[in-house]
Amino acid sequence: MTDTRFDVLCIGNAIVDILARADDDFLVREGVTKGMMRLIEAEDAERIYAAMGPAVETSGGSAGNTAAGIGSFGARAAYIGKVADDRLGDSFAHDMKALGIHFATGRLVGGAPTARCFVLITPDGERTMNTYLGACRELSSADIDPAVVSAAEITYLEGYLWDPPAAKEAFRKASQIAHAAGRRVALTLSDSFCVDRFRPEFLDLVRSGTVDIVFANETELKALYETSDRGTALDLLARDAALAAVTLGEEGAIVLEGAARHRAPAGEVERIDDLTGAGDQFAAGFMVGLTRGLDLTTAARLGCMAAAEVIQHIGPRPAVRLVDLAAEQGIALGAPARKTA
Amino acid sequence: MTDTRFDVLCIGNAIVDILARADDDFLVREGVTKGMMRLIEAEDAERIYAAMGPAVETSGGSAGNTAAGIGSFGARAAYIGKVADDRLGDSFAHDMKALGIHFATGRLVGGAPTARCFVLITPDGERTMNTYLGACRELSSADIDPAVVSAAEITYLEGYLWDPPAAKEAFRKASQIAHAAGRRVALTLSDSFCVDRFRPEFLDLVRSGTVDIVFANETELKALYETSDRGTALDLLARDAALAAVTLGEEGAIVLEGAARHRAPAGEVERIDDLTGAGDQFAAGFMVGLTRGLDLTTAARLGCMAAAEVIQHIGPRPAVRLVDLAAEQGIALGAPARKTA
Repeated sequence: MTDTRFDVLCIGNAIVDILARADDDFLVREGVTKGMMRLIEAEDAERIYAAMGPAVETSGGSAGNTAAGIGSFGARAAYIGKVADDRLGDSFAHDMKALGIHFATGRLVGGAPTARCFVLITPDGERTMNTYLGACRELSSADIDPAVVSAAEITYLEGYLWDPPAAKEAFRKASQIAHAAGRRVALTLSDSFCVDRFRPEFLDLVRSGTVDIVFANETELKALYETSDRGTALDLLARDAALAAVTLGEEGAIVLEGAARHRAPAGEVERIDDLTGAGDQFAAGFMVGLTRGLDLTTAARLGCMAAAEVIQHIGPRPAVRLVDLAAEQGIALGAPARKTA
Repeated sequence: MTDTRFDVLCIGNAIVDILARADDDFLVREGVTKGMMRLIEAEDAERIYAAMGPAVETSGGSAGNTAAGIGSFGARAAYIGKVADDRLGDSFAHDMKALGIHFATGRLVGGAPTARCFVLITPDGERTMNTYLGACRELSSADIDPAVVSAAEITYLEGYLWDPPAAKEAFRKASQIAHAAGRRVALTLSDSFCVDRFRPEFLDLVRSGTVDIVFANETELKALYETSDRGTALDLLARDAALAAVTLGEEGAIVLEGAARHRAPAGEVERIDDLTGAGDQFAAGFMVGLTRGLDLTTAARLGCMAAAEVIQHIGPRPAVRLVDLAAEQGIALGAPARKTA
């Protein structure tokens, strides 16, 4: 076993978010379902941008947000994702570097532009996402650096990677390398529509042991098992996955490990401003807890704390240092692992 | 006298803000004075961007922020400023359009890129600005559309316009047109370093009646009259300017009209997050009050309210509709002027 250089490697669609407040009528006119992510083409992107309100631009992408959260905890993160050789790509790469995250994926030159997601934030704090994948469609297994995967205690992959055509091969390659190096692989289900698109494949990833840790929210979990009963879905997931963490909004989160259940309450929230990044930051906190050897309940508490922080401001990444927030709440993170078993 | 199509026309340097949190050491290393704006060249821009933290991009520019605030009050704003034919220029123009602001200044093609300001936000909420002027240096009197100036009840100009070489001619042309149409002209002193650079010219603008309304904060006011005594500076400004509004931070604002003084308390603030845009939004609220015929104290209260809103979140423009905020605080804005005297 080699030393771990990274606590977590995150692999996902590298996206710049363009966030604007919108009323519910805007969603109706666009025919988009609130709280969901939909894929759009270049012409849709132009129409939506022209119609949407004044916007703020910030690096995003589900796994990218998680990497940012891990960095904010003072843990060691790496990221693999495809941006183009353009201004949005520069912004994305700048933010990764500024957060101390290892990010060395080759830029796409002469192809599609860097991906962007038009995030519509309604007055209730929900966010509805319209994603133009652009350069992300060129992420392939050639972008998976075996040295980085082998050096990461957990490799974390987003379900959204099933959308661009070549990324699922990248996903499988990363999982093989990680397991060969004795590491763990995590998957987030990403979005219930994403689950609908790829249910048989996602179930196979979990049941075959291609992934060891599953992240989901309640809607995604129910979509995976095509049931409206939470208890049934939790039981099925506990049977399929070695370890799973399910977020339950105001009810906090529940961790499933075999027959055992561990619950953590939701973090304290004064006012929900923008739900963007809640799941991403939960995953960051939970995995930091895992890699620092904390018990599962404490790891889930870290996740809930990080999610609570991010929903109280605009944008999908932490606005404060999560390592300081953890200290304030009396959670000692401990030292990183030198080796893994 | 023709009908007013616009309550306020704002003219300024059209800038996209790139905001990041920074510690005080960063300012020391850069040799920059906290709370101030400094001009930088392209190579400085690259160095600062490479060294600064993860960033959020949003349209800015002092007068642009004021125009956004006026739009947020539901009033009718126009804007003149120079962006390039590039992605940042697209973002700036998008935001103006999305706010319902008339913005028809020709883009700069084949020249310098759109201006950007690296805003460093320290833990105390202060913002320190590093501005690369880029395309703003090409704003000239040819960009001043007489029809728009004549149609605006107030033409508002930023002191920063004295930095790019051709803009001061644009400034003087706008003032002449406005006065010929029986309108008023307002100037913000912008920044104490800016005052230091152009003190004789600013004093001449005020004393010659080229501007009718002056906006300043305490530091700028003292810099203008080279005194450390607030009372002395206020007396001098009251003598020189037909109307002036001076912001005093936690003490609110004071309006000077001849021998008369009108005071407004600071707006309620739970926590200062980012002071960017405070002065810009004060000017927005105050001018909306003026154009709706409110008394000077109420106009200043509107300004303080708008400033309080913007300092409680990241970014220089309102995050909520200021017209709603005014209604919540029981301030009726009234109808816009049909004609001016």
